[in-house]
Amino acid sequence: MKKHAFELIAKDGEARAGAFHTSHGVLETPVFAPVGTQATVKGVTPDQLRDLGASLVLANTYHLYLRPGDEVIGGLGGLHPFMGWDGPILTDSGGFQVWSLGDINRIDDEGVTFRSHIDGSEHLFTPERSICIQQNLGADIIMCFDELSDPDDHETCRTSMKRTTQWAERCLNAWTNRDKQALFGIVQGGIFDDLRKESAEQLTGMDFPGYAIGGLSVGESKADMYRTLEIVNPCLPENKPRYLMGVGTIEDLIQGVKRGIDIFDCVLPTRLARHGAAMTRTGRINIKNAENTTDEAPIDADCDCITCQNFSRAYLRHLVQSKEMLGATLLSIHNLRTLIRLAKEMRQAIIEKRFDTYARNYYHLSTD
Amino acid sequence: MKKHAFELIAKDGEARAGAFHTSHGVLETPVFAPVGTQATVKGVTPDQLRDLGASLVLANTYHLYLRPGDEVIGGLGGLHPFMGWDGPILTDSGGFQVWSLGDINRIDDEGVTFRSHIDGSEHLFTPERSICIQQNLGADIIMCFDELSDPDDHETCRTSMKRTTQWAERCLNAWTNRDKQALFGIVQGGIFDDLRKESAEQLTGMDFPGYAIGGLSVGESKADMYRTLEIVNPCLPENKPRYLMGVGTIEDLIQGVKRGIDIFDCVLPTRLARHGAAMTRTGRINIKNAENTTDEAPIDADCDCITCQNFSRAYLRHLVQSKEMLGATLLSIHNLRTLIRLAKEMRQAIIEKRFDTYARNYYHLSTD
Repeated sequence: MKKHAFELIAKDGEARAGAFHTSHGVLETPVFAPVGTQATVKGVTPDQLRDLGASLVLANTYHLYLRPGDEVIGGLGGLHPFMGWDGPILTDSGGFQVWSLGDINRIDDEGVTFRSHIDGSEHLFTPERSICIQQNLGADIIMCFDELSDPDDHETCRTSMKRTTQWAERCLNAWTNRDKQALFGIVQGGIFDDLRKESAEQLTGMDFPGYAIGGLSVGESKADMYRTLEIVNPCLPENKPRYLMGVGTIEDLIQGVKRGIDIFDCVLPTRLARHGAAMTRTGRINIKNAENTTDEAPIDADCDCITCQNFSRAYLRHLVQSKEMLGATLLSIHNLRTLIRLAKEMRQAIIEKRFDTYARNYYHLSTD
Repeated sequence: MKKHAFELIAKDGEARAGAFHTSHGVLETPVFAPVGTQATVKGVTPDQLRDLGASLVLANTYHLYLRPGDEVIGGLGGLHPFMGWDGPILTDSGGFQVWSLGDINRIDDEGVTFRSHIDGSEHLFTPERSICIQQNLGADIIMCFDELSDPDDHETCRTSMKRTTQWAERCLNAWTNRDKQALFGIVQGGIFDDLRKESAEQLTGMDFPGYAIGGLSVGESKADMYRTLEIVNPCLPENKPRYLMGVGTIEDLIQGVKRGIDIFDCVLPTRLARHGAAMTRTGRINIKNAENTTDEAPIDADCDCITCQNFSRAYLRHLVQSKEMLGATLLSIHNLRTLIRLAKEMRQAIIEKRFDTYARNYYHLSTD
């Protein structure tokens, strides 16, 4: 199979089941990727990730560039040996983080000058620099450096989208490790159909191994998000994977797959876990609620994760109330398993041409 | 084999290899018990504990009585199902915690009145109450409620020791669940040979299933600790296990076993881990040191734990520097494995009559 090839195995409506060939194995899609911002999915070991069925893991270029440094990680053989994960890894470009975390000093056609959120030191990210850093990190899927903007202002969205396209060209030129790393383009354009179409058309002309939809799940309405997916997905080639960045509720995974998305990532399952919230098909549970104090039941009787197989709501509540690390670990494992299992089950349903029934039965979508 | 029976399998000098029969399996001694203060060894799952070779786990009566409450845990079937640990569990009596953590209002012959460190509420622990709470918690080994005192004041040590003996009688009378729980007496007396001897003689007269040595590792010199062990151990019956409470450095484990101790527990390995320190046979490593930034080596090339098998010092340093939970988890696993493996290896060396050589070779004792 050709490097970075995407096999479209089945379609059911717009929903797709696929297989993406990476340097660290075949990625079965749809897939949900846990986020390991600092080269660790918070509180979860690689063994536990494997056991809960994770295949793709995301790490953040911005954070790892600042600490411990991409050259340190590169010198140690890259992210795979560094973090003990031998499956596929995806790094983002840093574009989203300089926008959301960094103290931006200047954005121009050259790149983004920002101050570190750790020590205030000044740094410049350009498209070329982002690709170079991602090459040092050595992930299987790397992302173009993009510019984000307020998603509901047409003028700034247009400017950012056009710059993102120019930067995508430069990323393509800077992308030298083509044999090992697949570079994805990122469609921008906020919530504006004309900008999204223009962005998608320009990027697909550059023939990337995959395409991401960026700049969503940043405050716009669900209706705007889903409509944007319906606009963008038909513009993307069938034979390339489609990645919806930063999305990770149960509802959004189902609605995304329904509209043709293959890859998702989000900090939500692990972040909710650290705040004592469990994701289930019948809605979120605040484990700290007093009613859980003596509850022998697991979070979800239908869940096959080690948390639900071994521990009661009463024990999990005690751990969270006592601020014990194990509470965050066990809830993270459950939440990640819930999304990863959902993605696997959607894949099977697509192959068996029963996606709509599966999605309808999964749970009442309005509850999440 | 009789309930709570201790088989003395081998002796080499004063060092002992034994097998203690509990309601949840046979405990091979010498043994080091990880501490799960709030019914969880901080940051480590029960699966990980089993994998690193833990057999006995300690939980704290004071903490669990206050939160979630011993009746809550009792109603859920006790600590074993609650925390998902089906091996032997030991609970302390709360005596040490009311002394070190509680805001003590009054101590008299009846018991100790203290304020909770969580919400300031007032509580009374008596010997009978401590045993009742420990019965609700359901551990395999439970401890007499004892009184601690400044270890180097003879007068207060004598008062505390005498009260501890009186309370031991009352604990013996309150101990009803004799089939399932083994009650240990606690020898007190500070660093005073006469008091320690008197305490040991009085307690052994009550024929407990096991004996602990309390009130050590609380600030006295190593010389005082080791001399006290040499005084107490010969006073204790050969056919009962001996437990040195709250001790957990490599040196103290070796010196304790050399003097006849069978059981140890300590928060040190997990607490050091949370502060970024690794225990090794050649001394402690501060993983945050700059020299570890690019070090591909594991903490200890001879260690068989999952941390040393999978992760570099460079990665561990990055995790600790980034305040990632996984750093504490992986260092805890390593530190616990180091002490548990040491105890297992000492057992084998005793059986093979080469304990002194083993201890001498283990490492240069002065480095820990």
